[in-house]
Amino acid sequence: MTGRATPVAELVEQAQAGEARAVARLISLVESQSPELREISAALSPHTGRAHIVGLTGAPGVGKSTSTSALVSALRAQDRRVGVLAVDPTSPFSGGALLGDRIRMQDHATDDGVYIRSMASRGHLGGLSVAAPQALRVLDAAGCDVVLVETVGVGQSEVEVSGLADTTIVMLAPGMGDGIQAAKAGILEIGDIFVVNKADRDGAASTRRELRSVIAMTERPDGAWKPPIILTVATTGEGVDEVAEQIAAHRIHLEESGELARRRLARVRREIEALALSEVHQRFAGVSGDSRLDALAADVLSGAIDPFAAADTLLGTL
Amino acid sequence: MTGRATPVAELVEQAQAGEARAVARLISLVESQSPELREISAALSPHTGRAHIVGLTGAPGVGKSTSTSALVSALRAQDRRVGVLAVDPTSPFSGGALLGDRIRMQDHATDDGVYIRSMASRGHLGGLSVAAPQALRVLDAAGCDVVLVETVGVGQSEVEVSGLADTTIVMLAPGMGDGIQAAKAGILEIGDIFVVNKADRDGAASTRRELRSVIAMTERPDGAWKPPIILTVATTGEGVDEVAEQIAAHRIHLEESGELARRRLARVRREIEALALSEVHQRFAGVSGDSRLDALAADVLSGAIDPFAAADTLLGTL
Repeated sequence: MTGRATPVAELVEQAQAGEARAVARLISLVESQSPELREISAALSPHTGRAHIVGLTGAPGVGKSTSTSALVSALRAQDRRVGVLAVDPTSPFSGGALLGDRIRMQDHATDDGVYIRSMASRGHLGGLSVAAPQALRVLDAAGCDVVLVETVGVGQSEVEVSGLADTTIVMLAPGMGDGIQAAKAGILEIGDIFVVNKADRDGAASTRRELRSVIAMTERPDGAWKPPIILTVATTGEGVDEVAEQIAAHRIHLEESGELARRRLARVRREIEALALSEVHQRFAGVSGDSRLDALAADVLSGAIDPFAAADTLLGTL
Repeated sequence: MTGRATPVAELVEQAQAGEARAVARLISLVESQSPELREISAALSPHTGRAHIVGLTGAPGVGKSTSTSALVSALRAQDRRVGVLAVDPTSPFSGGALLGDRIRMQDHATDDGVYIRSMASRGHLGGLSVAAPQALRVLDAAGCDVVLVETVGVGQSEVEVSGLADTTIVMLAPGMGDGIQAAKAGILEIGDIFVVNKADRDGAASTRRELRSVIAMTERPDGAWKPPIILTVATTGEGVDEVAEQIAAHRIHLEESGELARRRLARVRREIEALALSEVHQRFAGVSGDSRLDALAADVLSGAIDPFAAADTLLGTL
């Protein structure tokens, strides 16, 4: 924060060389939607596309943070560079803060082959959809082989995280009552790998059994990936190597089947759309600044016009 | 579903006369974004603005459905017409389905002063932001004095529900561990009334105490509404009348302070913006149909252009 701002090109070069501070600075810049955002995006672009993005989602309490940390250890043992983006859709806190149970991440705080970053989606325009892809581009360009995106599986965020990822891990834990119930509602569709954590607890086998029968009901074309179910005890590391192996196996499947290219194309499409919508939204904000939108809203409130007619008028100002 | 479609004007007239089937049909039409959506919106417009919209949010398990049902009974005892919109951001099911713990709502199924409707936000473009306001307009025009919007408080949905409501009730329950913790992250800011349900359980008093101290830390201007904290046992109805009283008191405060007009203006502004953004999104979908967006995405993937440049190009097609 002292002295002159480092030019974007230099920051990107430093990030590529593995300098953690440059990586952190770039993420802060893209997250805060700084004026340099476009310049940064353009500078990063040629250096992206290498990292394997792995999403990790599940209900609060299943042990995502501990699992992420254990997975980082497993990947580091294979000498792979790892990025972690911890997204908390319920938190207004962002940036360097490692909250509560993320404390275990500090095991990796002095390892310069690991970048860890937390990000709050609340308050970000478009939630994860605008800020997170840019942060992932930074970690990708910084030479991460794998980037783990950890998010609390609530509402639509688990679907959003699967939209960001090449591989999505859905975590459950035994005895969480409505775990599979909730999962049925949509989480099951997005899981490439299922992990039943806290497998030393009662009910792990029955959770796996239930899960297996639900997965079996999903129709899949021939040659499609069949999501494995892995039992883990993240606190001891049990089963975590197998998760790392399945991540690698899924990556190979993605490449060989052409699914990687399809997923990434769909992801970039969504990213472009989200950026364009965000731009439109900002132009509307400009409109509201000159009170045109207020006048439209007042007309709708009085019953003079309906909201669709008002929206048409707003669109006409673009 | 048999015979010819009833014209919109007739449906709206029937809904205003309190015919439940017409109300249900109109909500289905607006929810499915039928071609008549604009016509319906225009026909409803002059008849809206009377209902008091009350949002009810809280973590899964706090007893929202039971509380909603008890609150409906309390409001019915005052001979008020009541609408209920139960929004489930994790469910792909919509329409007439009363799911699982909503079964208690069937107490009111034969009461023609009550309209009950469930709605899934998953899969709706813009989540709650597009479909829910239209459904609320239908219930408003149908002569509901109060409409309760019940939603699971996960991620951003509780903020969305507060954006739809004149009065927001935040529910907690004792012994839910991180209840207040989560609440701190944003739910507290949106609560006009706090309810600690399951108050017959251990820890209710301490939950109230914690809540009170957190609320006390929030700065408020002179004359501002001070959110009450009410202990309830929804299963027996204990405390529920007091919730109904506080809803009425808050409504009076909203009117006298001018806050009602401010909130509704802000709400309609968001609604207009959401409709306009949804329209833009549909135009992008048209663009993607002719594969222009695919070509842009491919260029971004290859590193030839960055996503911001692609978004600019997409916007240029509008």
